Amino acid sequence: MTENKNNYCVIMAGGVGSRFWPYSRADKPKQFLDFFGTGRSLLQMTVDRFRPLVPIENVFIVTNVAYKELILEQVPDLVEGQILCEPARRNTAPCIAYATSHIRAICLRKAGLTAANQDWSRPEMQVNIVVAASDHLILEEDKFRDTIRKAFDFVSKHKAIATLGMTPTRPETGYGYIQFIRDESNEMEHLNPKDIYPVKTFTEKPNLEMAKVFLESGDFLWNSGIFIWNLQTISEAFRYLLPEVADRFREGELLMGTDEEEAFIEQIFPKCPNISIDYGIMEKADNVFVLPSSFGWSDLGTWGSLYELSEKDTSLNVSLHSNALFYDARGNVVTLEPGKLAVVQGVDDMIIAEQKGVLLVCKKAEEQRIKQFVADAQEKFKGKFN
Amino acid sequence: MTENKNNYCVIMAGGVGSRFWPYSRADKPKQFLDFFGTGRSLLQMTVDRFRPLVPIENVFIVTNVAYKELILEQVPDLVEGQILCEPARRNTAPCIAYATSHIRAICLRKAGLTAANQDWSRPEMQVNIVVAASDHLILEEDKFRDTIRKAFDFVSKHKAIATLGMTPTRPETGYGYIQFIRDESNEMEHLNPKDIYPVKTFTEKPNLEMAKVFLESGDFLWNSGIFIWNLQTISEAFRYLLPEVADRFREGELLMGTDEEEAFIEQIFPKCPNISIDYGIMEKADNVFVLPSSFGWSDLGTWGSLYELSEKDTSLNVSLHSNALFYDARGNVVTLEPGKLAVVQGVDDMIIAEQKGVLLVCKKAEEQRIKQFVADAQEKFKGKFN
Repeated sequence: MTENKNNYCVIMAGGVGSRFWPYSRADKPKQFLDFFGTGRSLLQMTVDRFRPLVPIENVFIVTNVAYKELILEQVPDLVEGQILCEPARRNTAPCIAYATSHIRAICLRKAGLTAANQDWSRPEMQVNIVVAASDHLILEEDKFRDTIRKAFDFVSKHKAIATLGMTPTRPETGYGYIQFIRDESNEMEHLNPKDIYPVKTFTEKPNLEMAKVFLESGDFLWNSGIFIWNLQTISEAFRYLLPEVADRFREGELLMGTDEEEAFIEQIFPKCPNISIDYGIMEKADNVFVLPSSFGWSDLGTWGSLYELSEKDTSLNVSLHSNALFYDARGNVVTLEPGKLAVVQGVDDMIIAEQKGVLLVCKKAEEQRIKQFVADAQEKFKGKFN
Repeated sequence: MTENKNNYCVIMAGGVGSRFWPYSRADKPKQFLDFFGTGRSLLQMTVDRFRPLVPIENVFIVTNVAYKELILEQVPDLVEGQILCEPARRNTAPCIAYATSHIRAICLRKAGLTAANQDWSRPEMQVNIVVAASDHLILEEDKFRDTIRKAFDFVSKHKAIATLGMTPTRPETGYGYIQFIRDESNEMEHLNPKDIYPVKTFTEKPNLEMAKVFLESGDFLWNSGIFIWNLQTISEAFRYLLPEVADRFREGELLMGTDEEEAFIEQIFPKCPNISIDYGIMEKADNVFVLPSSFGWSDLGTWGSLYELSEKDTSLNVSLHSNALFYDARGNVVTLEPGKLAVVQGVDDMIIAEQKGVLLVCKKAEEQRIKQFVADAQEKFKGKFN
């Protein structure tokens, strides 16, 4: 039995999926799609990935209320109380603050404590949390779980905020980077965590030139957005670094898990600032550590990344879920509704995607414009093709 | 009342529509589609076009048995006996021979004559026939009918095979051409048919250079495939110029219009040579005349011709039956199933067509390859996407 009842998992599943439009749509974004035809959606694969590490009753999914039913359908062993609904989109910091508050209330209740009387020494309060996105791809799941176990062990012993940094394999400009401190003589050396390093800086998505420098240096890792921490550590980090968020949740901490939770969240959540966990906590905290990792990770954030990960024919064309015939065509990625046929002649490096009444034909190199196309279609056709 | 009970109309509707695949399909070829969103299919528009000229009971449609029900559905004032079913595809000469034989049997019966005892002087035998395709476009229908009326009048007075030649407006390489004799002193001058000229030659589709020469000369017209003749004239033409076809039909002439017609046709039709009316009759006959015409005609034989005829946006894109947004895209023709949206970025001069589970993306300039794509899809997917 490798699962530990004091391990919790928070899965962020609130994305609206406009980057893969029209393949992913507002009513069924990316995380709910079976991207690789395996029979499991990205969300289902994410939940399954954590099952050996975290008891299913300790898994919480933060999402928009619109997706609640879909999640309960896709993961039928979750109960309603495990779906935490955001009444507004406020980026990752309020999302994680909500889940943290909800878990803390559970622990306090188990320990017979109140929000005003937190006693972190109580065993019920010794809780580790892993936070991850619902729509990333991880190929080597055993290796992933070994890394998470190591991180759980580390954060249970040290007041550390841990994150996984992916060893870069190419000068990717689509990811943020984490610079870490290799120097063995650093002040945290006494922790002696093998292959766990203090973080020097988080950086935004670089341009290609900068990405090449990052790759060369060996000191930069891709920011995976996977975080591991102890309940006390993250609670204190929010309290000191993001009080404008933390304080709002503390007001009604013991309403969490009761019939009043929803009304409380609807009242305070929209008032939270729109701020990412990276900007609000990670970049400010002085106890952030990174575990350099490589287990075949992708955030599947672009058609380009999906193309890179997919099986290609001899002309480097990718066909997802569809029958396709290619003539004088190279480097295209094609996905239609299941069972359909695409015949593609005379185009290179295009996205050709059709789903629920919308066909997109777009250069892969121009895919950042898709959000604008969705907005234009929304304006012109009154939301008919969202 | 301009219609004349001695005028007959033969509409050829046996095409299988592979050139507009996947928009037109084996189960619903081009002639049955509402190409321009007018609410009427090309076949319906063709029948309607002849209504003021020919009594509806004198309209015969030659087609494949597979389309019989569809035709009766689309043109509900036809009766079953007006749909002549070809048991095999044998090009236009056997098709027209069949319709001619069927009409001749009707006339013989009306006149109380037998096939062996044809008396062309009888009024019931004084019949004019117009033969046309079911899937062409004609924009100026009044002008078209005036031309047909003139041709009917001409062929009822002279033993002439008449055809309409379209005054070319561009050096089109997709049509055959008719060269006519302008010389007013020719031997047919005594006929004094204003704007009706003897034909010198029929030519195959020219290359661009040749097409330009044709256009310059003023002596060449596009071969429309619309024929007008007297029953006696065409009967004799078949008899003398294509006896290998005519003789087969004469064997069972009086079975036409009886319960035995179908069995007879199934027996003899497949034995007919595969030969076009142009090659079998028009090029050999010495009494062929052409009426130079211009009433906005197209054989709609190619996506290119459809594109040319359709309304274009400021970037010269055409969208048929579909909502479409174009970005950095010029000269494309897009058609999806009704109500769908296409977003097209970064491609020029393409055909983008989606229908019943098949999406085609193909350069307009390469559309002649579509037949091969259909064949490939047929082989690979066992006819699933015909």
